[in-house]
Amino acid sequence: MPKRPRIYLAGPEVFLPDALAAGQAKVTLCATHGFEGVFPLDAALDLTGLAKHEAAARISAANEGLMRTCDVLVANLTPFRGVSMDSGTAFEVGFMRALGRPVLGYSNIAGDYKARADAYRALRIGLPDADGPDVDVEDFGLAENLMIAAAIVESGGSVVARAVPAGQEMRDLTGFEACLVQMQRGLDPLKRA
Amino acid sequence: MPKRPRIYLAGPEVFLPDALAAGQAKVTLCATHGFEGVFPLDAALDLTGLAKHEAAARISAANEGLMRTCDVLVANLTPFRGVSMDSGTAFEVGFMRALGRPVLGYSNIAGDYKARADAYRALRIGLPDADGPDVDVEDFGLAENLMIAAAIVESGGSVVARAVPAGQEMRDLTGFEACLVQMQRGLDPLKRA
Repeated sequence: MPKRPRIYLAGPEVFLPDALAAGQAKVTLCATHGFEGVFPLDAALDLTGLAKHEAAARISAANEGLMRTCDVLVANLTPFRGVSMDSGTAFEVGFMRALGRPVLGYSNIAGDYKARADAYRALRIGLPDADGPDVDVEDFGLAENLMIAAAIVESGGSVVARAVPAGQEMRDLTGFEACLVQMQRGLDPLKRA
Repeated sequence: MPKRPRIYLAGPEVFLPDALAAGQAKVTLCATHGFEGVFPLDAALDLTGLAKHEAAARISAANEGLMRTCDVLVANLTPFRGVSMDSGTAFEVGFMRALGRPVLGYSNIAGDYKARADAYRALRIGLPDADGPDVDVEDFGLAENLMIAAAIVESGGSVVARAVPAGQEMRDLTGFEACLVQMQRGLDPLKRA
């Protein structure tokens, strides 16, 4: 039996109260498409007795090591506590991209970055921020910052962005599955750059 | 004359109306510390006549290529349109980290991720988001998501987080300079993993 391509399952699902079950749902769906899903280890490590900074270092080292064993990455790009995706997930997209491995992604919210940024700025919520009225809002018709969206296109994929019912942004796997289908159809995730 | 270490200057300054001047201010400060600052090319490329997606692809390819020529990265981690840093900058931190090159970073807002996330969630601003009341807020006493903060610590640095006057979050270079000093004191950015 040939080796199944290993997919690193990046996204803020690691912060769900039932993170391991949410990860398993993705792993199961991967298996039905012939892939091996690999969920980040945040909730799977025994961090008992570690100081906060030690726990963080342990999780970081585990996930970086795990990424190096994977052939491809599929990221949940859904905005998380602001206009953009989870920053840890963005880090991971860049990490796998630098290794020359395909990166794919989906957002469970429709619409492009500019529309979200404009809506956010109009709220003037007043929390400290590097943004300001004269700061440009990038407008490339993309669902996320261009470094992320372009890396996905350059990988041979396209960002999947579609709305799901409110509250299901970390649960609905339709967009995730669309990424798996992209991989089956056109990518060769075992062929590394 | 020995080669000066090349520092990729990651951050949302590329979105400033005077991005090139803001980049030059960092480049100048780098030079006074013996480094060669390298500013992303977003505003320096001629994108005339390109469709939006072509322009995005051109910028992405240019910046990825530029990162590969650099020895180290210093990122502006200041929150940008939400709780976290600019997602493109997070991508770049991960990119350089995967290449085994030191990553450093500073935030021009004091305080840790959890405090910011709690403040943001308390506002209940109502924009579509993957967050929800049962979603964990990571609490590692770090200024950013652990993947980013731990990568900086593992590089031999520490995240510099200090408040600056409101409106100066993309201008004040005190934290940036502290990263340069970290590099002079303890890192060997030309020694690659």
